[in-house]
Amino acid sequence: MEYLKVSQVLKEKPIGKEVTVKGWLRSVRKSKAFSFLVINDGSSQGTLQIIVDANSIDNYEKVSSLLNGACVRVDGLIVESGGKGQDVEMQGRIVEIYGETDDSFPLQKKATSLEFLREQAHLRPRTNLFGAVFRIRHQMAMATHNFFNDRGFYYLNSPILTAVDAEGAGEMFQVTNLDMNNLPKNDKGQVDYTTDYFGKETNLCVTGQLEGECFAMGMGSVYTFGPTFRAENSNTPRHLSEFWMIEPEVAFMDLDGNAKLAQDYIQYLIRYTMEKAPAELEAIDKYLAFSAKSNKEKFESHLPILEKVRDTKFEQVTYTDAIDILNKSGHKFEFKPEWGVELQTEHERFLSEIHFKGPVTVTDYPRDCKAFYMKQNDDGKTVRAMDVLVPGVGEIIGGSQREEDLGKLQTRIKEMGMSEDPLWWYMELRKFGTAPHSGFGLGFERAIRYVTGMNNIRDVIPFPRTPKSCDF
Amino acid sequence: MEYLKVSQVLKEKPIGKEVTVKGWLRSVRKSKAFSFLVINDGSSQGTLQIIVDANSIDNYEKVSSLLNGACVRVDGLIVESGGKGQDVEMQGRIVEIYGETDDSFPLQKKATSLEFLREQAHLRPRTNLFGAVFRIRHQMAMATHNFFNDRGFYYLNSPILTAVDAEGAGEMFQVTNLDMNNLPKNDKGQVDYTTDYFGKETNLCVTGQLEGECFAMGMGSVYTFGPTFRAENSNTPRHLSEFWMIEPEVAFMDLDGNAKLAQDYIQYLIRYTMEKAPAELEAIDKYLAFSAKSNKEKFESHLPILEKVRDTKFEQVTYTDAIDILNKSGHKFEFKPEWGVELQTEHERFLSEIHFKGPVTVTDYPRDCKAFYMKQNDDGKTVRAMDVLVPGVGEIIGGSQREEDLGKLQTRIKEMGMSEDPLWWYMELRKFGTAPHSGFGLGFERAIRYVTGMNNIRDVIPFPRTPKSCDF
Repeated sequence: MEYLKVSQVLKEKPIGKEVTVKGWLRSVRKSKAFSFLVINDGSSQGTLQIIVDANSIDNYEKVSSLLNGACVRVDGLIVESGGKGQDVEMQGRIVEIYGETDDSFPLQKKATSLEFLREQAHLRPRTNLFGAVFRIRHQMAMATHNFFNDRGFYYLNSPILTAVDAEGAGEMFQVTNLDMNNLPKNDKGQVDYTTDYFGKETNLCVTGQLEGECFAMGMGSVYTFGPTFRAENSNTPRHLSEFWMIEPEVAFMDLDGNAKLAQDYIQYLIRYTMEKAPAELEAIDKYLAFSAKSNKEKFESHLPILEKVRDTKFEQVTYTDAIDILNKSGHKFEFKPEWGVELQTEHERFLSEIHFKGPVTVTDYPRDCKAFYMKQNDDGKTVRAMDVLVPGVGEIIGGSQREEDLGKLQTRIKEMGMSEDPLWWYMELRKFGTAPHSGFGLGFERAIRYVTGMNNIRDVIPFPRTPKSCDF
Repeated sequence: MEYLKVSQVLKEKPIGKEVTVKGWLRSVRKSKAFSFLVINDGSSQGTLQIIVDANSIDNYEKVSSLLNGACVRVDGLIVESGGKGQDVEMQGRIVEIYGETDDSFPLQKKATSLEFLREQAHLRPRTNLFGAVFRIRHQMAMATHNFFNDRGFYYLNSPILTAVDAEGAGEMFQVTNLDMNNLPKNDKGQVDYTTDYFGKETNLCVTGQLEGECFAMGMGSVYTFGPTFRAENSNTPRHLSEFWMIEPEVAFMDLDGNAKLAQDYIQYLIRYTMEKAPAELEAIDKYLAFSAKSNKEKFESHLPILEKVRDTKFEQVTYTDAIDILNKSGHKFEFKPEWGVELQTEHERFLSEIHFKGPVTVTDYPRDCKAFYMKQNDDGKTVRAMDVLVPGVGEIIGGSQREEDLGKLQTRIKEMGMSEDPLWWYMELRKFGTAPHSGFGLGFERAIRYVTGMNNIRDVIPFPRTPKSCDF
């Protein structure tokens, strides 16, 4: 008998055909004469209802007493369904029980909070909500690869282990193979890293950009898509210690090209997800509406905003003009907008939500707000940086044209009190056949959070890592 | 004027059209009246020849004196080429020099060894050989996502930071945020990890399998594709400390299904790469032939073997029968094949190259050779493990059906002297709605090495990490 996934049964509707399905019980309604089993196998948002007749299966007592979460194989006949919201159902003939469950099954409880489910991250994929989130995550990953591949970009696996602090940000995790309880010391009483695995201090990457530049300056257009790490002590719904990032880097592209690429990518991500996972987006929206109602909170679906971002040309404004707009707006901000200081989220949201009423790219930030590698403008004050702001969250993408002039880069590094030595290879990209180039970074989980509407970033990554939390 | 990538010019052949191209000089042939510039922009293996006429460009002296590696923009007319091996060439009108280079450019030298180029990993993408390798790497990554996506698998980002030693192998990197020169100690004088970032000892993952099982047991079919780490002190052409792995995990799939999936995947990888990157495979093959000739070594192209693996049904044999075959072969092995001991590479290669003359999947290995999670056979001696062996390297894939019976798994964990405690969540997959499931792992770089024919695994990853080596 042919084994079909539930998604195939729902799509192909093989009415009159005997098939096999396998999955986990989402609900069981039992009566003396017959019972309804509802199963899901993760292949889609959909479930299949199976009717088992007490007279036609051997193990009826056992089957009809199964609890939610039990796993079964069912052979049966697909028939047209009289039920609401379903075209087909199955008349079960043989039910094999793969695995039962018992009262201690954590997902039995009707109301399971997101906080509680984070402690049960190994079982989250079995829920309606998280099935939807992680299928969307998959679609957004596929969208990413398709988008860049279609445009002739090459996928680059930048290194995870690194001896370079690319952002100069400090907040890095250290990686070692030394016996922590018996550390070798040098003459000065400091840890002697010469005997460590790599012979020196090594960290987890915070970005793949610098290595991305190496590859862009040879292969033209590349993108990374891999894990990055921040050892910040930030316990917020927007921060993870381990998160995935997408970083395109393109030779011969200036900041305008960069802004265009960012717009095209974001819009593609939204369009692709809406096409491939409409049922998932709807299921999450329903959950969020229900959840808001339970908490007596106002609910407004984010889906219309998504559609707007998908369909609207992004505005573009310089940082200097943006500060001007904010100051002339008459709006009362917690932090007063001031030239020379990074925009706050409240400023970003005002710009995209109130002023531009749509996505907007802010360019040419003050030099002192930004990293050493950004291309310096002739005004001596600003750099060719850009942040893409979208309604609902504010900044979603940050990027820049890179400084391709060796001398200017060297001067800037000196000014910032950094050392050129660990960056000798990065400098050589400017020494040997330099060229204009640009790129940006998108935090994958932040993008998923935006597209799904999920509030907490811990709920859009399979196993979240945050301060004091590294379970599973 | 329209900017075209070199790959577009070569493919579209826009004869009679004025276009812009940008790229790095691969060679310059200078004469008084005109010069030939050959450029590549990384978009493909191909190069474009540009003729510049001393009388028709302003900066002829400068342009014709450029060295290999310099970066230029050229506006010009695409014309039919009289030259051998090229359909079109360009008559340059305007040459803008983005970046010159000088005699210290490391790639100037005619003979640049692979060892030397590893020290110049930031410039490797500019070479003919590594452009080919990394474009193939990209195609194999795309092939992987397409293969699994087409079959309804969901991409899973399993965690990189973990507190679990999944393989019980020990050789893990430790991750910490503590000040190594001032470690907090507990009463017993040991490091006090309660103040570390995650509040406990944390490592880099060696596999995503256990988390893959969590997701397979809810979403049905999933695959990981991410970095994994081994702190082994192995300095060989086959080992990396940081490498990417692909691990599919499928609910309701048994070992035969697993073997079939592995065959389909390997064959798809080869077919896709041969279709998408024939010029790259040819370029590498030429390099390897040239290199062998220079070293007065015999050269045999690996491409016919690849084609055979792509087109041949994989044989299947049990470990027990394989040992029998080896012992009856009369072949003299360095290590005598013996039941209960893992197969050596020489055994694996004999099986696939000499005996089966093609790919072969060996199943049902002795229990004591394998990890705790493999499904136990009724004979009490073997487990439902499988290794896929291919001519040329031996093992390329390892996998198994997983033990889905809670009691058997608990017994095995106890027998092996392991603790269940850190695996409570893994055990719960068996307690709540367990089901048969299987999966395997493929080392991405080992696969790239196999498909490209490159000898050293350090030459198929952008920035290799090996003992005492973590540069760039």
